[in-house]
Amino acid sequence: MKLAATLAIAASACALSSPASAQFAKPEDAVKYRQSAMFLMSQHFGRIGGMANGRIAFDAKGATENAEVVSEMSKMPWQAYVVGTDKVANTRAKPEIWSEQAKFNEYNQRLMSDTTKLVAAAKTNNLDNLKKAFGDTAATCKACHDNFRRD
Amino acid sequence: MKLAATLAIAASACALSSPASAQFAKPEDAVKYRQSAMFLMSQHFGRIGGMANGRIAFDAKGATENAEVVSEMSKMPWQAYVVGTDKVANTRAKPEIWSEQAKFNEYNQRLMSDTTKLVAAAKTNNLDNLKKAFGDTAATCKACHDNFRRD
Repeated sequence: MKLAATLAIAASACALSSPASAQFAKPEDAVKYRQSAMFLMSQHFGRIGGMANGRIAFDAKGATENAEVVSEMSKMPWQAYVVGTDKVANTRAKPEIWSEQAKFNEYNQRLMSDTTKLVAAAKTNNLDNLKKAFGDTAATCKACHDNFRRD
Repeated sequence: MKLAATLAIAASACALSSPASAQFAKPEDAVKYRQSAMFLMSQHFGRIGGMANGRIAFDAKGATENAEVVSEMSKMPWQAYVVGTDKVANTRAKPEIWSEQAKFNEYNQRLMSDTTKLVAAAKTNNLDNLKKAFGDTAATCKACHDNFRRD
């Protein structure tokens, strides 16, 4: 998938480095960029959660479509964590994102790996597999938020 | 590309219809969803504009990567134009989106077609081709905004 390749390259090449920062006209744009990607991801992830939790009828095709969007979106936010953008109003990003970059990057990678597995799980057409992959992904979201997002 | 197929299906099946509205917990989420997709699209489109206008050195690989994101993002907003969401605070959507649906859908389709051509143009490694495709796409953005977005 070309978009996946593109974004994976962007994520690995640009995360937290100056080439990424040069891509945003102002710090506020970087914040809005990552928040936009996170929001789109959360909307599609929530639809899978509805299936995992029984609020929505399970449907492998729908789960797969949503998981694919989640997987693509999970590659986007990282290039926008430009140094200094924890100072922008309206962000909940903690300074630890930059002072503990290796740990933050590890969570980014883990999320991308989890969401790849989420797509695979959705395709098995087995609700238990989807629940497991949904739970694993949600745990990664939470762990990263607990460490790197202000309340 | 699977995401493309997924989103094209979503765009054609869900645009303006009730299944799409059922996907959003509240009208504000639909507005935020389409604004998020538009913002991500605009950021990557702006990077191509920088090359087209000579502000950034032309580079076919970078142009292609950005065009691919633009193309994917151009499929996302439409499912979020849920009936009634022109009443939500903070949206510039005009009621004509729903009273002139066929025309609005035509612009949506034109944008998706334009951005597919933008990817192809970027891949030719010819700046004139990129400029032409960028101009065509920008004209479609503007025409739709002029008709369907409040000042």
